Amino acid sequence: MTKFEPRISIITLGVKNMKKARSFYEALGWKAGGPSNENVTFFQGRGIILGLYGHDTLAEDAGIETAPQPKFRGSSLAYNVASVSEVDEAFAHAIACGAKSVKQPEKVFWGGYSCYFSDPDGHLWEVAHNPFVKFSDDGHLIMGQE
Amino acid sequence: MTKFEPRISIITLGVKNMKKARSFYEALGWKAGGPSNENVTFFQGRGIILGLYGHDTLAEDAGIETAPQPKFRGSSLAYNVASVSEVDEAFAHAIACGAKSVKQPEKVFWGGYSCYFSDPDGHLWEVAHNPFVKFSDDGHLIMGQE
Repeated sequence: MTKFEPRISIITLGVKNMKKARSFYEALGWKAGGPSNENVTFFQGRGIILGLYGHDTLAEDAGIETAPQPKFRGSSLAYNVASVSEVDEAFAHAIACGAKSVKQPEKVFWGGYSCYFSDPDGHLWEVAHNPFVKFSDDGHLIMGQE
Repeated sequence: MTKFEPRISIITLGVKNMKKARSFYEALGWKAGGPSNENVTFFQGRGIILGLYGHDTLAEDAGIETAPQPKFRGSSLAYNVASVSEVDEAFAHAIACGAKSVKQPEKVFWGGYSCYFSDPDGHLWEVAHNPFVKFSDDGHLIMGQE
């Protein structure tokens, strides 16, 4: 049996208002990619594509009934940076772009510094500085194997 | 203001049973990384880390009230492969590992071939073949810019 390679091609976030969601991520720093149109947006990232798709259309694509979303949806996306001050700056930038503050930047129990915000559709992002990890040249976290 | 770089460091999935969730992703093909323990698992991927954390603990970390999850949570993770037969193989492998079938592999309206499954905690994955995209040497999708 062929195993999965350890990679994720696309993270697709369901959105209620494509124009608003796209503008938010563009302001944040992402650039829309090739086949984007009024129904779908792809942001070419380093090692991953961030996609935006209609909330109900995404549910329909998977053949699942759509549903009202609770505030906590059981997952988060993390953007790690190299210092405490970069967490503060990234948080301030996200809020300036229209993100909703979920948790102000603060020291956390595992020895790092982090905050949470949500995008216009309620998708949860953490911005974190973890002094115990390294970055690759293109900004990816390197944790190594057990 | 410093913009975000187009990268995502970690995708963290909230789980109810760490041992079960970790075993599922290990069987799928991911390898646990450095600081993993009974409360958290990190899988070192190419360009992204997949994290598993307690469902309620993740909500608490963000300072949000936890909540029962609807079947559709408003987002999906996609694993793209290079052919129709690889979609079938990956789907069969996921099901053999204990994934729940959400949508059997089938031709889709945008010209590709895809299926959906959910992990033991209900997180939604798509496996897709898109004949219109290219892969980098390390298996990432390249869509280019608009």
